[in-house]
Amino acid sequence: MRIVDLIRRKRDGHELTREEIQFIVRGYTEAQFPDYQMSAWLMTVLLRGMTGQEIATLTEAMLHSGVTLDWSDLPGKKVDKHSTGGVGDKTSLILAPIVAAGGLLVPMISGRGLGHTGGTLDKLEAIPGFNVNLAPDRMREVLSKCGMVLVGQTEKIVPADKKMYALRDVTGTVESPALICASIMSKKIAEGIDALVLDVKTGSGAFMKKEADAIHLAKLMVETGVRIGKRMVALITDMDQPLGLYVGNALEVIECVEVLKGGGPADLRDLSIELSAWMFYLGDKTASVDEGRKLAQQTITNGSAFEKFCEVTQLQGGNVDALRDPRRLPTARNRREIRSQAAGFVHTIQSEQVGIASLVLGGGREKKEDSIDPAVGIVLHKKVGDAVANNEPICTLHYNSDSRLSEAESLIRSSYAISASRTAAPAKLIRQVIEGSSKPAAQAS
Amino acid sequence: MRIVDLIRRKRDGHELTREEIQFIVRGYTEAQFPDYQMSAWLMTVLLRGMTGQEIATLTEAMLHSGVTLDWSDLPGKKVDKHSTGGVGDKTSLILAPIVAAGGLLVPMISGRGLGHTGGTLDKLEAIPGFNVNLAPDRMREVLSKCGMVLVGQTEKIVPADKKMYALRDVTGTVESPALICASIMSKKIAEGIDALVLDVKTGSGAFMKKEADAIHLAKLMVETGVRIGKRMVALITDMDQPLGLYVGNALEVIECVEVLKGGGPADLRDLSIELSAWMFYLGDKTASVDEGRKLAQQTITNGSAFEKFCEVTQLQGGNVDALRDPRRLPTARNRREIRSQAAGFVHTIQSEQVGIASLVLGGGREKKEDSIDPAVGIVLHKKVGDAVANNEPICTLHYNSDSRLSEAESLIRSSYAISASRTAAPAKLIRQVIEGSSKPAAQAS
Repeated sequence: MRIVDLIRRKRDGHELTREEIQFIVRGYTEAQFPDYQMSAWLMTVLLRGMTGQEIATLTEAMLHSGVTLDWSDLPGKKVDKHSTGGVGDKTSLILAPIVAAGGLLVPMISGRGLGHTGGTLDKLEAIPGFNVNLAPDRMREVLSKCGMVLVGQTEKIVPADKKMYALRDVTGTVESPALICASIMSKKIAEGIDALVLDVKTGSGAFMKKEADAIHLAKLMVETGVRIGKRMVALITDMDQPLGLYVGNALEVIECVEVLKGGGPADLRDLSIELSAWMFYLGDKTASVDEGRKLAQQTITNGSAFEKFCEVTQLQGGNVDALRDPRRLPTARNRREIRSQAAGFVHTIQSEQVGIASLVLGGGREKKEDSIDPAVGIVLHKKVGDAVANNEPICTLHYNSDSRLSEAESLIRSSYAISASRTAAPAKLIRQVIEGSSKPAAQAS
Repeated sequence: MRIVDLIRRKRDGHELTREEIQFIVRGYTEAQFPDYQMSAWLMTVLLRGMTGQEIATLTEAMLHSGVTLDWSDLPGKKVDKHSTGGVGDKTSLILAPIVAAGGLLVPMISGRGLGHTGGTLDKLEAIPGFNVNLAPDRMREVLSKCGMVLVGQTEKIVPADKKMYALRDVTGTVESPALICASIMSKKIAEGIDALVLDVKTGSGAFMKKEADAIHLAKLMVETGVRIGKRMVALITDMDQPLGLYVGNALEVIECVEVLKGGGPADLRDLSIELSAWMFYLGDKTASVDEGRKLAQQTITNGSAFEKFCEVTQLQGGNVDALRDPRRLPTARNRREIRSQAAGFVHTIQSEQVGIASLVLGGGREKKEDSIDPAVGIVLHKKVGDAVANNEPICTLHYNSDSRLSEAESLIRSSYAISASRTAAPAKLIRQVIEGSSKPAAQAS
């Protein structure tokens, strides 16, 4: 087999076989052929697409490029959630404790912030002492003790993706649904889970601005998971405005604690419950999604979800006192209120700009090497459809350095559109549910 | 400007500007970005195509990556012919002397054999002593003395093509009409010519088996040349059977001498006259193509074309005696007749297999480093439509080593299809003529 022939086959629109796709992934990971052949092949995939079978095969080949986790000795179903990323999207810190408190296992491997979107690891590290880099044995210990663990990617899991993503980033081949799907699904399936709930974001703060693109990717991911024998669902959810009211790492931890204690903003609470409910259902904890909703609500009401969050924080070295008293979380020295310059109603919020404003204040990274200031961020006082008086605060910036304050301020200002009459209601939070087959395939891999 | 953004733009179907294409060609030639970005871009070009304007810009950018020849101090129009390659395609050695004898200048830069097709340089080197590697000053001297010169590509002419072709060869990006067009046209225009006649081959012995593909490429090349201010024509010609009767380097020189002396097979003679006629016409030597035909015929009849071939051979160090007495050309030690195993008529000849049979005998290269045996080759006794008796010779193999004789023999056997009745006439030699605008554009570059 020669890589140049496989480039030609995909270029000419043929479906590649399992052996051919395995040859490509293994060969590239082991440096048996150069980057310039892989980038040409990746471009053929982007422009020609892949069949469902090809994507599943690619996902499995990437999965087996490294170690995969195995929790089969631990009793109970293992479930997880993956979000395609948004602004103020902090549900992982809420649903993992809910689902673990409800009796399932959540071996969650998360990422860092990317561009205008935040990352679960960065948020967790806003809790003083919280260690997301656990050795495999310690990861197992935490998971078995408290039913959940929150860690980062290691070099050993899906090394093919690391190498492929670095190449895609500089060759215009990031935007392929097939490659995005295989990248996400290989890393999630490597976690050793039985079921996966996908939160596919669409709107101004999402990577996929168009709903049709989000639905397409969601269907590919659900189909891929089902082919590999996992129970799957994808929720297409709104990211036309930030989720919740807080954007920034420590600020988002505070908002998660509020929700886990029964408060917090309705959109964040509702979405967290909804995603948890599907995790309960797909993990065979409840017979229906509706029973899942009730169980999720119950773990909040009886305090067990919040206690679970405290427990995992304790086990991973974090300062639990900072959860019980959020004043002990990192806090920015300064506040700057942004006030409306007109009266009326919030028509739209360009969420990507809100995310970039937080990044500009130091809450995210422009380059991989940048360090993050956990304390900074933005508190939104007004969301889409809200009435706003002239000179009324719409946001408060939390900042430590004023070097790029005016840039953040103008980003926030230009992101809010105020209209004279109430023309917009907030978009429906959950736009569509895409279910996989209800039971795993007998043997897909 | 960043290469990754230009990859994305072409990927998404946008037309690239002159500055963008120049950035890509210059940047790649000067190694300002790596192969893996160029290969991704080349694949976008292959799959998305290029507009006529883009191809002309690419051609000019490649042209200016190295030195271009300038004969403006030599009086008279400079013309050349380019063939896309075939089996037994030896017209360059005939038409260059005809056209030079007729009073135009032919600064011809040729290539070596590629795959199953022969190369002009290899044929010339079958003439003992013939030197195709002339220093620029010597090239000018030969051209000014005898009106023609026959040399090989140097490293200094269109270095971008050399680097791009090497990458295309291993990344499945050879087969792009836009890239093929820019590669051919940049090298030909670098010769410093005023007009170019293209011989675009189609059929079983051509690179483009389908006539529609040949016509498409021909139109691209004609349009590109016209945009750059050259007079252009493309003849779509038959390569469904070898051209003439001799395949192999010294054998083809013999057949060329026959034609230049007024003999030789009709198809080779007719095509040589036709291509020469167009060169005369586009070079403003004759007022019509028909007058061009007459002038071409006249240079054969009065012996001036053959004398011109002897003159250039002398000036380039070749043994003229070998042209006057072809027994002095390299001759194979052995002959093997291939006889028909049925009576009937030649229905088809798979020309590519005939070319490979010659290669297998040592007349071509399988790897770039292989050396060539100038003496070996194939003499065809039967062509399409010819009657053949059982056991009658259809071909004679000329060989020196019998190590791969049986392989060549079976290639020849399987390339001939004999049918009981005369079902096929030879295909029309010139299938279509694609003319550029009759006068050069005022200023295209």
